[in-house]
Amino acid sequence: MSKGTVVLAYSGGLDTSCILVWLKEQGYDVITYLANIGQDEDFEAARKKAESLGAKKVFIEDLRTEFVEHFIWPAVQANAVYEDRYLLGTAVARPCIARRQVEIARREGAQFVSHGATGKGNDQIRFELTCYALYPEVKIIAPWRIPEFYNRFRGRTDLMEYAKEHGIPVPVTPRAPWSMDANLMHISYESGILENPKVSSQCLIKGNIIHHFFIFNPYFIPAGVPVKVTNMNDGISKTTALDIFSYLNEIGGKHGVGRIDIVENRFIGMKSRGIYETPGGTVLLKAHLDIETFTMDKEVRRIKQGLGIKFSELVYNGFWYSPECDFVRHCIAKSQENVEGKVQLSVFKGQVYILGRESPKSLYNEELVSMDVQGDYDPCDASGFIRINAVRLREHHRLQGLSSTKQ
Amino acid sequence: MSKGTVVLAYSGGLDTSCILVWLKEQGYDVITYLANIGQDEDFEAARKKAESLGAKKVFIEDLRTEFVEHFIWPAVQANAVYEDRYLLGTAVARPCIARRQVEIARREGAQFVSHGATGKGNDQIRFELTCYALYPEVKIIAPWRIPEFYNRFRGRTDLMEYAKEHGIPVPVTPRAPWSMDANLMHISYESGILENPKVSSQCLIKGNIIHHFFIFNPYFIPAGVPVKVTNMNDGISKTTALDIFSYLNEIGGKHGVGRIDIVENRFIGMKSRGIYETPGGTVLLKAHLDIETFTMDKEVRRIKQGLGIKFSELVYNGFWYSPECDFVRHCIAKSQENVEGKVQLSVFKGQVYILGRESPKSLYNEELVSMDVQGDYDPCDASGFIRINAVRLREHHRLQGLSSTKQ
Amino acid sequence: MSKGTVVLAYSGGLDTSCILVWLKEQGYDVITYLANIGQDEDFEAARKKAESLGAKKVFIEDLRTEFVEHFIWPAVQANAVYEDRYLLGTAVARPCIARRQVEIARREGAQFVSHGATGKGNDQIRFELTCYALYPEVKIIAPWRIPEFYNRFRGRTDLMEYAKEHGIPVPVTPRAPWSMDANLMHISYESGILENPKVSSQCLIKGNIIHHFFIFNPYFIPAGVPVKVTNMNDGISKTTALDIFSYLNEIGGKHGVGRIDIVENRFIGMKSRGIYETPGGTVLLKAHLDIETFTMDKEVRRIKQGLGIKFSELVYNGFWYSPECDFVRHCIAKSQENVEGKVQLSVFKGQVYILGRESPKSLYNEELVSMDVQGDYDPCDASGFIRINAVRLREHHRLQGLSSTKQ
Amino acid sequence: MSKGTVVLAYSGGLDTSCILVWLKEQGYDVITYLANIGQDEDFEAARKKAESLGAKKVFIEDLRTEFVEHFIWPAVQANAVYEDRYLLGTAVARPCIARRQVEIARREGAQFVSHGATGKGNDQIRFELTCYALYPEVKIIAPWRIPEFYNRFRGRTDLMEYAKEHGIPVPVTPRAPWSMDANLMHISYESGILENPKVSSQCLIKGNIIHHFFIFNPYFIPAGVPVKVTNMNDGISKTTALDIFSYLNEIGGKHGVGRIDIVENRFIGMKSRGIYETPGGTVLLKAHLDIETFTMDKEVRRIKQGLGIKFSELVYNGFWYSPECDFVRHCIAKSQENVEGKVQLSVFKGQVYILGRESPKSLYNEELVSMDVQGDYDPCDASGFIRINAVRLREHHRLQGLSSTKQ
Repeated sequence: MSKGTVVLAYSGGLDTSCILVWLKEQGYDVITYLANIGQDEDFEAARKKAESLGAKKVFIEDLRTEFVEHFIWPAVQANAVYEDRYLLGTAVARPCIARRQVEIARREGAQFVSHGATGKGNDQIRFELTCYALYPEVKIIAPWRIPEFYNRFRGRTDLMEYAKEHGIPVPVTPRAPWSMDANLMHISYESGILENPKVSSQCLIKGNIIHHFFIFNPYFIPAGVPVKVTNMNDGISKTTALDIFSYLNEIGGKHGVGRIDIVENRFIGMKSRGIYETPGGTVLLKAHLDIETFTMDKEVRRIKQGLGIKFSELVYNGFWYSPECDFVRHCIAKSQENVEGKVQLSVFKGQVYILGRESPKSLYNEELVSMDVQGDYDPCDASGFIRINAVRLREHHRLQGLSSTKQ
Repeated sequence: MSKGTVVLAYSGGLDTSCILVWLKEQGYDVITYLANIGQDEDFEAARKKAESLGAKKVFIEDLRTEFVEHFIWPAVQANAVYEDRYLLGTAVARPCIARRQVEIARREGAQFVSHGATGKGNDQIRFELTCYALYPEVKIIAPWRIPEFYNRFRGRTDLMEYAKEHGIPVPVTPRAPWSMDANLMHISYESGILENPKVSSQCLIKGNIIHHFFIFNPYFIPAGVPVKVTNMNDGISKTTALDIFSYLNEIGGKHGVGRIDIVENRFIGMKSRGIYETPGGTVLLKAHLDIETFTMDKEVRRIKQGLGIKFSELVYNGFWYSPECDFVRHCIAKSQENVEGKVQLSVFKGQVYILGRESPKSLYNEELVSMDVQGDYDPCDASGFIRINAVRLREHHRLQGLSSTKQ
Repeated sequence: MSKGTVVLAYSGGLDTSCILVWLKEQGYDVITYLANIGQDEDFEAARKKAESLGAKKVFIEDLRTEFVEHFIWPAVQANAVYEDRYLLGTAVARPCIARRQVEIARREGAQFVSHGATGKGNDQIRFELTCYALYPEVKIIAPWRIPEFYNRFRGRTDLMEYAKEHGIPVPVTPRAPWSMDANLMHISYESGILENPKVSSQCLIKGNIIHHFFIFNPYFIPAGVPVKVTNMNDGISKTTALDIFSYLNEIGGKHGVGRIDIVENRFIGMKSRGIYETPGGTVLLKAHLDIETFTMDKEVRRIKQGLGIKFSELVYNGFWYSPECDFVRHCIAKSQENVEGKVQLSVFKGQVYILGRESPKSLYNEELVSMDVQGDYDPCDASGFIRINAVRLREHHRLQGLSSTKQ
Repeated sequence: MSKGTVVLAYSGGLDTSCILVWLKEQGYDVITYLANIGQDEDFEAARKKAESLGAKKVFIEDLRTEFVEHFIWPAVQANAVYEDRYLLGTAVARPCIARRQVEIARREGAQFVSHGATGKGNDQIRFELTCYALYPEVKIIAPWRIPEFYNRFRGRTDLMEYAKEHGIPVPVTPRAPWSMDANLMHISYESGILENPKVSSQCLIKGNIIHHFFIFNPYFIPAGVPVKVTNMNDGISKTTALDIFSYLNEIGGKHGVGRIDIVENRFIGMKSRGIYETPGGTVLLKAHLDIETFTMDKEVRRIKQGLGIKFSELVYNGFWYSPECDFVRHCIAKSQENVEGKVQLSVFKGQVYILGRESPKSLYNEELVSMDVQGDYDPCDASGFIRINAVRLREHHRLQGLSSTKQ
């Protein structure tokens, strides 16, 4: 008799294929679920593989548009960057994937969900917090945290052997000395030889970076979300979320934009090293930052900057579906009401250069700021402003009795 | 009879030469003071010019080393960036310049200081808050905020005429359609045609960017301060503060590193547009960020990140010499105690790529984080960690009565 | 010929009466405006006085309900407290008063507004920022900052003399050795002998504090706003905003609730001393805090706490009408969506004791938290939670090489 | 053969007595450790009980002075309050207790520590994070999280039966319908009937509150730490840390100071209800807040306020011994350098009233702030200050095109 039904997040690779078979061995019915979030994958081959390994049902879901619109766009609005550098390409994908997994589990009456994420990483947390938040009664099977499983499969060799024994096709191409993961938003490289933080990542820098100058305009309309990108060299425009993001990825990728090698702090308290490429995300981060500062009040910006940092931490740690992340997203969206305009930028040899911007909602007042005209501004006011700001500083100095004794 | 003695921050240019003469006309004795903070200037010519225009005394002070050690280094420790983009190249120079000006004023018994900063900008505030903080009784003469002055000199033509009348040498080279300011830390371009934020700054991008790959190691030792840089291509090393920074400027500058076109929010509440080049500062920002994350505890880092943002705002607004900025600098310096190590990076076509890092003080534990070895870590713990983190999320879901009705 | 029309915020007292006459002397037409925000005042006498002194028009406006609903309620939602102690009783009143003043000025075609606030205080800023924000072209006449005025009126004696000369009725009762200001939200005592921070404020403590135990229930419904208060001793209920607040003031006042003696930091950088009584506000602060923590998610609460502190600073500094305060108020209001419930409390001898609370929206789960039943909670999870939280701490200890050498 | 040695945090009560015997049953040698942190306890009786139950060694440690000096004083410096209300009386005690427990474990060569904290509470976390931080290799036995234990002892009846079987003396007095915990800093009441948040805590309010007026002066000297308290009624002074705190507890306790009934958010994500009495801590919080605001620069205060909130969260969650809490404590201590002075206050019917303060380090400048003298302050400066602050607000208004259409 079946122990119940499991919806397994299935990649088609060796690990999750072994998990599929192992779950069946343990007495579960297994439904596989594979999300298309823009990775380079032969989805039909994965479908056949899952069926041949005994999946009761196979779901392959194209989430690309909702990934861009519901997950990447809020990150763009937030200028989301974790620890000053990481653009969260993996972190924003996880709640998108897990949400659909939970929907399938509910629809199919499955009490269990499972995944192949390791026990030391962030992804297990991101998957599972989403599952618990949206399906609190769900039971989660995380084989890499179950002693019977991880003691049996202590390395790749064990998986390969198990695969051979159970008719699981094994990869024939030699394995890279690191692991790689990709989705629409980024490519990540980690593990293997890269676990030594001193080992140079130079080998990962692509040689064929294009050198010609390339200018284009991402447009933003309310609220802080890209709606059009135009290549100023050839006039090509893109207007759907998926097309815009894919096109920026393509152009940015060719020019080597948005590549970083970092050590980051995982939620569980370890430091880990990752190399990431986020071309389209990097272009949009810079463009959005520019139009946002152009149109948003200074003090609103300061408060919103703090909320954006909070948002980034929440998303990194897996709390996309949480009351506080809902709240922060709401506040950030509110702040974007006037973030609208057009940014001219170039992508050139790995760099994104902002060249100019315009907006119907700008708070920039050329006459007010001009060095050549006075505008509605009395320079004498600045004297009072400065002297009042100095009241406190002079008192502090007075207290220290330094006026007469020190410069 | 003299109204008293003024120490005038003198640049040798048209504006401050006119101010010098005008102050004399008003009945002041004028001491000129010109700080060398790394700008490209003929200091001896400026000395002669000041003397010929009737300066009572002329001070030319080489502040380059103290500028790097006492002002740029703290900004490096803080990862100081204003509004996510501006590295504060002008803002950190101002308190350095004004501090010496006040020292001279005290030493020379001058009751007044004066400067040529305009009435709409940040620099007037940065100069004057420093003066008031260090010399509370000082009186400040800011001609561009005095109606008699600014109504008389309504444009460059008025200054030129006044110069001719008073024997002030006038510039013969044609003027760029923007104004430019430089110091060791950065070059800024603003005003003129750039006041239109839509006007492309592409004209300012240098053509001759070098394309060969360039790798070098900034070293940091306690506390988060660079002490050595080595070019891995040719083995050249630099070890003094000024040499390190100048060398990084030279290399970074050749490769077009650290160039930005931004709109920023001035302290007085206007938005203004600036184009900045901060080559050495950008290299060090990236290198310091990397070694800091590598060696600093995650939660200390979060708190320190907030302090760094605060520091940046304070410095931008002119509060370098304030009790709160003293306090924040102290806290940041404390956080740097273990920030020590070596970063390998390349400067390539406008980009700084971090390639690897090592440190005797790293909290990175290769065994702990490895995907291949378990280390002193029980993956089962993660299950409890996740479930406890989900307690709150499940309660929230329960409250919303969504468990059974929504996925 | 008239220089134009001024709308003067008129209190009926000596200072603003003199200002009224002085403005007329200067050639202005003067409209007086007196807001009823709950202070103890003979409004009709003030009307007659203004008319007799030559006011062109006299406006007396009852703003009590809008003061409670639009200004005090948002402060309650925010748990607004400045510098940990001050409940902002004056600060929330100022934008309420100035908003109507500006409305009158616009309606009456007046280009000027005027007030009697001193040049060292916060109120001048609160009034004027509101005016500039809502009526940017307005011109402000602040006599206490105009040398011709303040040099003429150097003390109370000068005002008295001027009053006698100009037929302004002068107060006959002796003046208290401090100044006092009152509105619906609080009474403040400051200046005079209280300017010495060491002088005891004991003289201001009321003797006749009622000692019987008093229990009542403020109700909150969405969103965090009081809608009903019931006295459990006698069954009396109040249900309009003004009645609720006035009733809590009456009861709280009798019991000496909410009295503080503080030194605070003014926006302009001075420290000043104030003694405040905020009875109703203090009761509501405690009640709201309680029901908020009861119904709001922990992490939302943390973020909202930061926003509340920001709100308090903004309001204190006079930025009620600013883009950032609009933004913060919006975010805080959003956070209040589930803040609904009933708090039982007693007011007793100067103290507000919370005794219990209930809510249909509580996240409190009695079964989950109970020491006696396990509920849907596995205590083993806590082991993993703790060990994962300790990963970082153990690494830190390891790095310090202290494991074997120190306890 | 022994499984090893356990140092058990032993209270002398039923639970930990059963744990002692149960640990022996499981094959451990047990050392008991009882910390005196000011609770009302017969320590000698507890010693005898432990010995009679087979403890290998018994440690009874008087930690009262180090509790006040090393744990309560830093909390006073921080103005530590969790979630706006809870003064952390339990939370600051736990690291103090666990630190000594770990010292004993190291000294006695024990590999294990154990405690009787429940699996749903905060205390387990506070104890264990301290243990892991200071003794990373330690193994922790938490019986209330071990299924064999908690399934055997499902309620008090099971413990009573086990006690009878194993010769453990059982309590004869009837049990209160809640549990109570006390230390020098506070008394807490929770659980039992109080788990229903609606149940009134009125029963816990003491009847015999003293009504006479009581004035005394806590003195603070650098850095923000009390060094003397004097009763102004009778001249009695206390000067050691323990005496000062105990005396304030006694006086404050008699007057019913510092009693709160709250719902708080535990670290593990549950809401729980607690009633706390913190008399001495409340007096010192108010006194310290007062002298701090009196002597500390406004902007330092703002930054320090944020650090204090962070400190409170860290301590509540059990991270006293963590790099970030070390860092925050260091920063807070730095901020206290000038926090020195004398506060006059009264304790009266449940309230602490501040009456006045003085300090040699005050930034309060009576002349500067006075309404009667101008001091070194030009009121005209305020006009410029306000107008510059309004630049942004007027721009915002302009953008909205509201100038002419709305008030």
